[in-house]
Amino acid sequence: MIIYEDICQAHKRINDYIHRTPVFKSTRINERFGCSIWFKCENMQKVGAFKFRGALNAVSMLSVFERQRGVVTHSSGNHAQALSLAAKIFNVPAFIVMPNNAPQVKIDAVKEYGGIITFCEPVLEQRELSAQILIEKHGANFIHPYDNENIIAGQGTCAKEFLEQVDQNLDVVMTPVGGGGLLSGTAISVKANNKATLVYGAEPQMADDAYKSFYSGKIIPQTNPQTIADGLLTSLGDITFDVIKHNVDDILLCSEKSIIMAMKIIFQNLKIVVEPSAAVGLACVIDNPERFRNQKVGIILSGGNIDVSSFGWR
Amino acid sequence: MIIYEDICQAHKRINDYIHRTPVFKSTRINERFGCSIWFKCENMQKVGAFKFRGALNAVSMLSVFERQRGVVTHSSGNHAQALSLAAKIFNVPAFIVMPNNAPQVKIDAVKEYGGIITFCEPVLEQRELSAQILIEKHGANFIHPYDNENIIAGQGTCAKEFLEQVDQNLDVVMTPVGGGGLLSGTAISVKANNKATLVYGAEPQMADDAYKSFYSGKIIPQTNPQTIADGLLTSLGDITFDVIKHNVDDILLCSEKSIIMAMKIIFQNLKIVVEPSAAVGLACVIDNPERFRNQKVGIILSGGNIDVSSFGWR
Repeated sequence: MIIYEDICQAHKRINDYIHRTPVFKSTRINERFGCSIWFKCENMQKVGAFKFRGALNAVSMLSVFERQRGVVTHSSGNHAQALSLAAKIFNVPAFIVMPNNAPQVKIDAVKEYGGIITFCEPVLEQRELSAQILIEKHGANFIHPYDNENIIAGQGTCAKEFLEQVDQNLDVVMTPVGGGGLLSGTAISVKANNKATLVYGAEPQMADDAYKSFYSGKIIPQTNPQTIADGLLTSLGDITFDVIKHNVDDILLCSEKSIIMAMKIIFQNLKIVVEPSAAVGLACVIDNPERFRNQKVGIILSGGNIDVSSFGWR
Repeated sequence: MIIYEDICQAHKRINDYIHRTPVFKSTRINERFGCSIWFKCENMQKVGAFKFRGALNAVSMLSVFERQRGVVTHSSGNHAQALSLAAKIFNVPAFIVMPNNAPQVKIDAVKEYGGIITFCEPVLEQRELSAQILIEKHGANFIHPYDNENIIAGQGTCAKEFLEQVDQNLDVVMTPVGGGGLLSGTAISVKANNKATLVYGAEPQMADDAYKSFYSGKIIPQTNPQTIADGLLTSLGDITFDVIKHNVDDILLCSEKSIIMAMKIIFQNLKIVVEPSAAVGLACVIDNPERFRNQKVGIILSGGNIDVSSFGWR
């Protein structure tokens, strides 16, 4: 069981290595939606996503013996980059299993941060098998991207910072939910600071496993998600589901159209770059306007790793 | 003649209305270029550009009598939006002459800030004529976008803030140069703080009037500029050229390819949205690497008003 004190300890442990990311507001966004929104910019975190907090906390908690043997994950996303850089900082080998169809930009990023890549066929069983081989060969420690208490405690440092920066009581704090690591850590931090602040998970309708699990009371795994929010394709884990069940007030859904609209609004008004998964919080405001009217809302923008080569420049 | 004290007074006058925009650094950018770069994010200024500083200072210095008669400009860019919002804040009518082929997004922005638009044929003589008619009809004050001492003093507040935020001696400060308002104000602020800090103007090769004027010692107007940096199409004015001649150390040029590369580097590493004109400073680092090696460099990112509808979203 993770408590707020774990998050405070994690913050002390990682604080020298992370960015204290800025919090922005936009008058035009607030006028448009009739509420006050504070945006916590984890797109500006190192490696471009909140994932660095959890990975750094997890690596820093390994024993000297464990560090020598290295860490392993199978991921093609932000967790792979985050774990690679976190391991590099502590001089720990990072073995990263990636599907052989992963985009070159992601492969390059993992390499740049010093990750040692093993390619495999792009199916889950092959990823797990490749990771298992590395664990057995090197005695390396598997670091799950979200269903891991040290990861969750690290992610919780983001909301802790956010509440310190906003410096007034928020009515709601909302984060995207994929595997649930960020949402779990956020819920623990927020409820420890003020039980009355509501905590919402924001999820695409097209990948609504957290919503279904929350309302049915049991984990309903994600099957065939079809969303632009490519960081939110995973299902909740046992640990994250347990935290979410007991600490989160609701899971909201949003359409694909609203995710794209939210990205554009964020680009145009905040002048910052976010990835689709990070826009899901604002997309839920677009799709549930009455729920946020006149509220003080904190939204965590989870990451900014988008392939800019796809942009047309006029 | 504009002195640093004018800029300090301007800062006091406008300080309650502007954003103290953040300054960002990127380890990856610094490693790539072998220097230390601080970026001053005027893309996050109100209306999305530094232009708001000058416009606000110019409007705030009008007498009560002048305010009643309103302000006029002919512009389709950031100055029109900036003047509209500045005038709205002081309850002054803003008459904006725009070419009838201006993009809808710019028309909408001026309207949103309360500007009263007069459309005209998209040629300079028609713009000037339409402005002249408004001046005669309303007795309104023409506010030139850059060749105006109060505008220049307002733009100079950006570098003043920047130097306060960086809190160590910079070797170079660089800004884009179009009409020269930002560069002039910057040069006065920087040289007043430390004569040894070099001040460079950054200009597209494809719109190199400031470069030619600087090296020939007389204003050589821009003809037929063909650059993606659509905020830098104008020529220097008499006042800005005089300030630049006496206070700027050099004008550097960059290619169109480097402007686009600089935009991508800024999007990917700083996770912020800039318009092409704002990327010209970093583009000059790309095209003149030896000049910046091991230097402490301050770059002003002048604006972030880009039409996001042109981006493809994967």
